[in-house]
Amino acid sequence: MTTPRFDPRFTENVINAMGPNTSPRIRQVMGSLIRHVHDFARENELTVDEWMAGVKLLNWAGQMSDDKRNEGQLVCDVLGLESLVDEITFTLAGEAKDAPTATAILGPFFRADTPYRPNGTDIVLTKPKGGGEMVFMHGHVIDFRTKKPLAGADVEVWQASTNGLYEQQDPEQAEHNLRGKFKTDEEGRYYFYCLRPTPYPIPNDGPSGKLLTLMDRHPFRPAHIHILATKEGYRPLTTQIFDRQDKYLDNDSVFAVKDSLIVDFVPLKNDPHASLELEYDVKLVADAVSNDV
Amino acid sequence: MTTPRFDPRFTENVINAMGPNTSPRIRQVMGSLIRHVHDFARENELTVDEWMAGVKLLNWAGQMSDDKRNEGQLVCDVLGLESLVDEITFTLAGEAKDAPTATAILGPFFRADTPYRPNGTDIVLTKPKGGGEMVFMHGHVIDFRTKKPLAGADVEVWQASTNGLYEQQDPEQAEHNLRGKFKTDEEGRYYFYCLRPTPYPIPNDGPSGKLLTLMDRHPFRPAHIHILATKEGYRPLTTQIFDRQDKYLDNDSVFAVKDSLIVDFVPLKNDPHASLELEYDVKLVADAVSNDV
Repeated sequence: MTTPRFDPRFTENVINAMGPNTSPRIRQVMGSLIRHVHDFARENELTVDEWMAGVKLLNWAGQMSDDKRNEGQLVCDVLGLESLVDEITFTLAGEAKDAPTATAILGPFFRADTPYRPNGTDIVLTKPKGGGEMVFMHGHVIDFRTKKPLAGADVEVWQASTNGLYEQQDPEQAEHNLRGKFKTDEEGRYYFYCLRPTPYPIPNDGPSGKLLTLMDRHPFRPAHIHILATKEGYRPLTTQIFDRQDKYLDNDSVFAVKDSLIVDFVPLKNDPHASLELEYDVKLVADAVSNDV
Repeated sequence: MTTPRFDPRFTENVINAMGPNTSPRIRQVMGSLIRHVHDFARENELTVDEWMAGVKLLNWAGQMSDDKRNEGQLVCDVLGLESLVDEITFTLAGEAKDAPTATAILGPFFRADTPYRPNGTDIVLTKPKGGGEMVFMHGHVIDFRTKKPLAGADVEVWQASTNGLYEQQDPEQAEHNLRGKFKTDEEGRYYFYCLRPTPYPIPNDGPSGKLLTLMDRHPFRPAHIHILATKEGYRPLTTQIFDRQDKYLDNDSVFAVKDSLIVDFVPLKNDPHASLELEYDVKLVADAVSNDV
């Protein structure tokens, strides 16, 4: 695609400036990055103003980012990069014959300091003003290969409230509202109460919102619950599960939906605390799966 | 280069998410950007950790940037992007048969508020501690096509001191030290005193320094003086001139050297204020060059 109007040695010169002590991986990744960035500039005959607009947008992303917000990550998300890296990771990991639970992106609203809560807890610490449907979510954590339930596994969940905001975005929500970390019991079960998730727009006030506007795209993510499941000796699993009823399933603003992650919320009877039920089993793969099952 | 191991529709889906009201140019540039970013991720089978390291590096660049420092720009510079965009701009502008003065990058140390100074001024407001050679720099601004000198043109210059720092990086230098904006006189002449430039490292304490270290590259730029020349009715010219004696001419850390921008500092006699002379004429192209000269 590169036209011969421009110095054909320029890109090689930049790549070849790497010194002998560059690691092989850095040499590969940076060489590839330089080639793609240069091809991108030449193919589009990028102007100085366009390039500077890009620089400003990236600097703006950094300036908006802090402990509670990662705008650089969100810019990647709207370009599909986080979901693509996730797919690559999942593909490379998927050398077992049957795939374990599909993975999905961690997203920018994960908090590393989410507290443990006892099974059965209602994580709706702040009732949403606009109402919301209560869900009893439960399931097992299972060894992908042996199919046996795993006791003592951690299941961490987080979700936005029905106003579309995670607690760290919303001063009206209690700290760690709609988040919790549950340990599976002796039968490998986890269970808690949460909200039926609702679709929400990703934050629109920064460079990712600007990019969406430029690309004439909506900012909505389909309704979902984030899950991070871990157990010593097993590969951590990051995933999201999506409500089959959601109208944004086919056009998630961050491209994270996979068919196998779509779930059904079903009516629940005889529970005064919830009107819906969601059963979801999480399959974990042991760190060193032996090939001779 | 993309292997078929990954979902072949993913990139098209992201590109096709752009809506009908996207401008044609945004559709082209963002489509190309998405394709290159995705190909880059797939070709290198980018890991989550590597991708997150990139996000952190970009956020860091924004966080270091302010009115006086543009680290996002510097990251582009060490990857050769600013010089490449400059070459593209110059190539597209160069439809005249002879090329006017070659252009070079503006760089991150330009200041829009540089003051006018009378011709003949010494811009060395703060004497460098380690000494330095004084230069009498002079020349004409010339119409590229008619070869006539241009009165009333602005010639703006800026340079680092011999400690490798521009004044906005160095609290020990006076405000606007080693900067000035000169108006050509009736004969189209500009002239002033400055330092013979010395090579210097670009700032090494941020993400661009980190990238250079990872790529086993030195941070030095060959000695140079920045020039921005403007006159109403003419295309602005941004350039840098490089000292032929410099040992980094062949491996500028930001890839801005062009052969036609290399100049000679020659001994100057009978000037008590300077021991070297640099004569440099700047050629400007009229905004609307008629094709039928």
